[in-house]
Amino acid sequence: MRVSKVRVAVAGASGYAGGELLRLLLGHPAVEVGALTANSNAGELLGSLQPHLVPLAERVLEPTTPEVLEGHDVVFLALPHGTSAAIAEALGEDTVVVDCGADFRLEDADAWRDFYGSDHAGTWPYGLPELPGARDALRGARRIAVPGCYPTVSTLALAPAVNDQLVEPDVVVVAASGTSGAGKSLKANLLGSEVMGNVSAYGVGGVHRHTPEIEQNLGARVSFTPVLVPMPRGILATCSAPIKSGVTADDARAAYVKAYADEPFVNVLPPGQWPQTQAVLGSNAVHLQVTVDERAGRLVAVGAVDNLTKGTAGAAVQCMNLALGLDETTGLSTVGLAP
Amino acid sequence: MRVSKVRVAVAGASGYAGGELLRLLLGHPAVEVGALTANSNAGELLGSLQPHLVPLAERVLEPTTPEVLEGHDVVFLALPHGTSAAIAEALGEDTVVVDCGADFRLEDADAWRDFYGSDHAGTWPYGLPELPGARDALRGARRIAVPGCYPTVSTLALAPAVNDQLVEPDVVVVAASGTSGAGKSLKANLLGSEVMGNVSAYGVGGVHRHTPEIEQNLGARVSFTPVLVPMPRGILATCSAPIKSGVTADDARAAYVKAYADEPFVNVLPPGQWPQTQAVLGSNAVHLQVTVDERAGRLVAVGAVDNLTKGTAGAAVQCMNLALGLDETTGLSTVGLAP
Amino acid sequence: MRVSKVRVAVAGASGYAGGELLRLLLGHPAVEVGALTANSNAGELLGSLQPHLVPLAERVLEPTTPEVLEGHDVVFLALPHGTSAAIAEALGEDTVVVDCGADFRLEDADAWRDFYGSDHAGTWPYGLPELPGARDALRGARRIAVPGCYPTVSTLALAPAVNDQLVEPDVVVVAASGTSGAGKSLKANLLGSEVMGNVSAYGVGGVHRHTPEIEQNLGARVSFTPVLVPMPRGILATCSAPIKSGVTADDARAAYVKAYADEPFVNVLPPGQWPQTQAVLGSNAVHLQVTVDERAGRLVAVGAVDNLTKGTAGAAVQCMNLALGLDETTGLSTVGLAP
Amino acid sequence: MRVSKVRVAVAGASGYAGGELLRLLLGHPAVEVGALTANSNAGELLGSLQPHLVPLAERVLEPTTPEVLEGHDVVFLALPHGTSAAIAEALGEDTVVVDCGADFRLEDADAWRDFYGSDHAGTWPYGLPELPGARDALRGARRIAVPGCYPTVSTLALAPAVNDQLVEPDVVVVAASGTSGAGKSLKANLLGSEVMGNVSAYGVGGVHRHTPEIEQNLGARVSFTPVLVPMPRGILATCSAPIKSGVTADDARAAYVKAYADEPFVNVLPPGQWPQTQAVLGSNAVHLQVTVDERAGRLVAVGAVDNLTKGTAGAAVQCMNLALGLDETTGLSTVGLAP
Repeated sequence: MRVSKVRVAVAGASGYAGGELLRLLLGHPAVEVGALTANSNAGELLGSLQPHLVPLAERVLEPTTPEVLEGHDVVFLALPHGTSAAIAEALGEDTVVVDCGADFRLEDADAWRDFYGSDHAGTWPYGLPELPGARDALRGARRIAVPGCYPTVSTLALAPAVNDQLVEPDVVVVAASGTSGAGKSLKANLLGSEVMGNVSAYGVGGVHRHTPEIEQNLGARVSFTPVLVPMPRGILATCSAPIKSGVTADDARAAYVKAYADEPFVNVLPPGQWPQTQAVLGSNAVHLQVTVDERAGRLVAVGAVDNLTKGTAGAAVQCMNLALGLDETTGLSTVGLAP
Repeated sequence: MRVSKVRVAVAGASGYAGGELLRLLLGHPAVEVGALTANSNAGELLGSLQPHLVPLAERVLEPTTPEVLEGHDVVFLALPHGTSAAIAEALGEDTVVVDCGADFRLEDADAWRDFYGSDHAGTWPYGLPELPGARDALRGARRIAVPGCYPTVSTLALAPAVNDQLVEPDVVVVAASGTSGAGKSLKANLLGSEVMGNVSAYGVGGVHRHTPEIEQNLGARVSFTPVLVPMPRGILATCSAPIKSGVTADDARAAYVKAYADEPFVNVLPPGQWPQTQAVLGSNAVHLQVTVDERAGRLVAVGAVDNLTKGTAGAAVQCMNLALGLDETTGLSTVGLAP
Repeated sequence: MRVSKVRVAVAGASGYAGGELLRLLLGHPAVEVGALTANSNAGELLGSLQPHLVPLAERVLEPTTPEVLEGHDVVFLALPHGTSAAIAEALGEDTVVVDCGADFRLEDADAWRDFYGSDHAGTWPYGLPELPGARDALRGARRIAVPGCYPTVSTLALAPAVNDQLVEPDVVVVAASGTSGAGKSLKANLLGSEVMGNVSAYGVGGVHRHTPEIEQNLGARVSFTPVLVPMPRGILATCSAPIKSGVTADDARAAYVKAYADEPFVNVLPPGQWPQTQAVLGSNAVHLQVTVDERAGRLVAVGAVDNLTKGTAGAAVQCMNLALGLDETTGLSTVGLAP
Repeated sequence: MRVSKVRVAVAGASGYAGGELLRLLLGHPAVEVGALTANSNAGELLGSLQPHLVPLAERVLEPTTPEVLEGHDVVFLALPHGTSAAIAEALGEDTVVVDCGADFRLEDADAWRDFYGSDHAGTWPYGLPELPGARDALRGARRIAVPGCYPTVSTLALAPAVNDQLVEPDVVVVAASGTSGAGKSLKANLLGSEVMGNVSAYGVGGVHRHTPEIEQNLGARVSFTPVLVPMPRGILATCSAPIKSGVTADDARAAYVKAYADEPFVNVLPPGQWPQTQAVLGSNAVHLQVTVDERAGRLVAVGAVDNLTKGTAGAAVQCMNLALGLDETTGLSTVGLAP
């Protein structure tokens, strides 16, 4: 039994990312859940907004202010873009601040301005430990930028091919996502009647904000199209790039197996088995498979991830573990909920 | 740290109930997963059939025989009706055998014959600890019959009203269920194209096999209609009965709160909040609410449960815990996966 | 070939009922689509809001005012409750006004006040031609109140049993509905992430506004519980009532077959076949089946309807046909869209 | 009023394509529905298998033999691959035979052998009238090969770009499809429990049989990945290719508008509006939009189609109209069923 647990606050606890953080934190053996904050829902019971979080049902949501959040060992921010910097500044330097928003993901201030239309807030260590070099920067970090959900799966599905120069650095990603990726926003196109029985593309033509993030991760040119599909959670990314001469499907698979051999959450599936989102539902795993289409001259890789778990909240907990010196997998699982 | 873990086998590991048992057992701190068996899938890798169970992906399914199953402390049977008795008989009396099938649920041999058309195999302690008197019979038991999914939620949604004689013992249950309740059977009406965008009633007119089980639990006359709805998991049971004169909504709610005050997995929601299946997805919780419709003269109670978790595999683990003298909640959670 | 077509306006053309009206009217051989109005969407192109209505894509929505609506032979109102009376009054008495809202459905001013909390606007001929006596009042009518979606299917599923006194007039209805029944309202509980994989009951305890309408139609006491299920369209109503002594399943079925023998849109299915919503998707048909549960002493009837078609817009067109002296089935179909 | 109608038979009437053909034929003013055949379902009532086709509910399915099919003006074949040739040969040369299967789509016998593993049966006029040159070959034709569902939307989404040489002939297509595209096959991966809440890729790496058909239509190298999504119907194809120097988004859109200016079923959406499958549900329309991603140097086009309507049965009826000299749009609609 630990004498003292890590005290954790969640800002944005009424949303989907906040709810998923709390679901994971309730199962984390080293964590004690502290303040829970919200904006328009401040003052309400968490149980009325997140009825699946039974043990926290009687918690009252507090306003999202530095005063409420200070005094915790770890603060997770699950807030709209542009709001994290002010809060982080007001929190002590010893507090681990894990931002699930976009503010500190990009290194290129111009790309930030082009895609977000505001001034660049800065760059924090990037919370994708599986990216070469990233894990070291996360150990002991006090500020962490959790990747976007699409960049997580797209990057991991292509990194071995790009890094080992099996392909030209000119990739195409078409990624189907469940609706929770769009958050709890009250928009007509997110109504159940609109999304069920419906598939649509959005942000077509390279204008989605996750595009420069994938480019940054891969050092490649990226054509990215997100597609909204009728399910609450999960992303399936279909990724391809022109294969270099002589590279075979076996070469490609070997590169992926090698790249992820020691990764606890990346699961390169057995030959012939392709990822599906149901297998990663609620888990922190990424499932990958790769092959070569010789007829078309392209390497094709497919990745599946739960956008709210490994795509957001699971990654945030994984990064917290690294920051605190805990075992990286504490409180996280590779077991999905199916069917 | 425990020196030795409980060794557990799962018969029927390729199906939905078997998969859910394994999902829960992988998170159970006192359990070591032993033999996994199947019928037509024997010889295959579990990972090809249950890709969400990553840590067991390389396990090979063995045939379902007493030889394979013996030598375990606990054997879970997730098999077709009529097959459990022979296997249980071949296992030692000290082995805890938890049957997720129907064979040993009913006490009335005639009811068994009427609804199942075969000879009654007998009656085992009934695995619904929340039913008055049931928990004691489960402590230390070596044979346990896990309830059906519909009876679990229907019984818990009506028991306080019937037992406290707030209503006439003449109940109507209409329960909407996700498709996993029907198992992995290859039937045309279970194809995705048929179930999505579709709701249908089946077993109408009192012919569903769970009817006598609900009657047995409640000691009431039961009109039961199951309805198939387009989601993989979850049951929402809408239950009603004629209210006795003078009973108010407050009386009814008070009876439910009192009946379940000490139950770790039964959650009577705050006044005005009604159950939804998403809130119990993958959890072992039952969510309940009750009111009185004075205009119609009926008490109306609604219950939500995950048919595979508290409705089957979670109940089985809860019963195993009781049988082995572990804390009843070990390895189980009231936290659901939403959205 | 007709020399002149009937000129029809639709108020509320940006919503689900309005969209379904236009889908049907585009296939109606005697109709010419005139003004299309909206409230907050006035000024927008219909094609941006209802992209499935291709032939009307370039129509501009006008504000919902009597000035815009006058000068048409028929005006359909698909508006929020409480707004129809003022508009109808401003339109000429010769104009056929078909109201898809609730304002003129109830005969009992007290019931209206109890359930809607405002003054009763009055009663118009009730647009359920299959209800005994209703059709005659609709022929040539100039004001018509289209029934609610739940009352349509619940009434038709129980009327023969109640009217032939096969049952006690004390019925229980549990009806599962797709989400379009709730309209295009921007409410958090209607978001796709919330409704997919989720079933919930609402308006429990006799407080749903369709309750007094079903009571009025059947002359019976009604316990009514609506259930929201994850699909865009369709209602499946499971209805039951205490059977009178000696009434058999065959008696019940014979009564239904006889009652609906001449109805073009009511389809009593062959023995043993039960309704499903997919079979009536987009059609004006109601599918019914009935049996007797002797064990529970209840008649059980199940009905399926598309809430937007026969449940709203199809009924409206059917009533318009009667009002104008056209063949009742003109422009309507019993063929559903499946799978 | 026509004195005599065209007499039409449907082989494979119990499947999804057969059911959709009948749905459309029931609304076709020049058609009389003749023999309906099936294989394993021969002898059954159509109403028990296709309950949405109410007017044909009492039709008995006959075996699929030339004897049953002969004597009709038109025979639609909705049969497994490899079975059409024998039947077509037995039917008179004057009979219009419209094959919804793959047997006669490909011109290249080697490609056929590579992808289907059997001998090439031959090549019939290809039933995509919107493909340059195709319409003339269909007028008066007596043998027609209906395109595959993926090739229909992929081809139309890319043809103007490829034909006008706006792009390199090296295209990437990722197409999300509803489950009815896989037919009514009893396969575990098509069960509702498996497909709901799940997205998966299949036939990855250029092995899907529709690949050579898209190549043939476009005269381009094609990387094609189909993705299964949780809805019964609809395909959304996201297509891209390297843009040639200097080509702008406006150029691209102008080429599409021009190419399809006279096409009754191809709808290039207004600028900024992107296709969604719900808008084409049950309609014969194809919705398209195109842009240029300058950052990635690619033209991106998105197309939506109902795989069973314009993707199969609607195209078949459109081709029948051309073959018989009827107006091409007879019995077909651009109005979808939404929501």
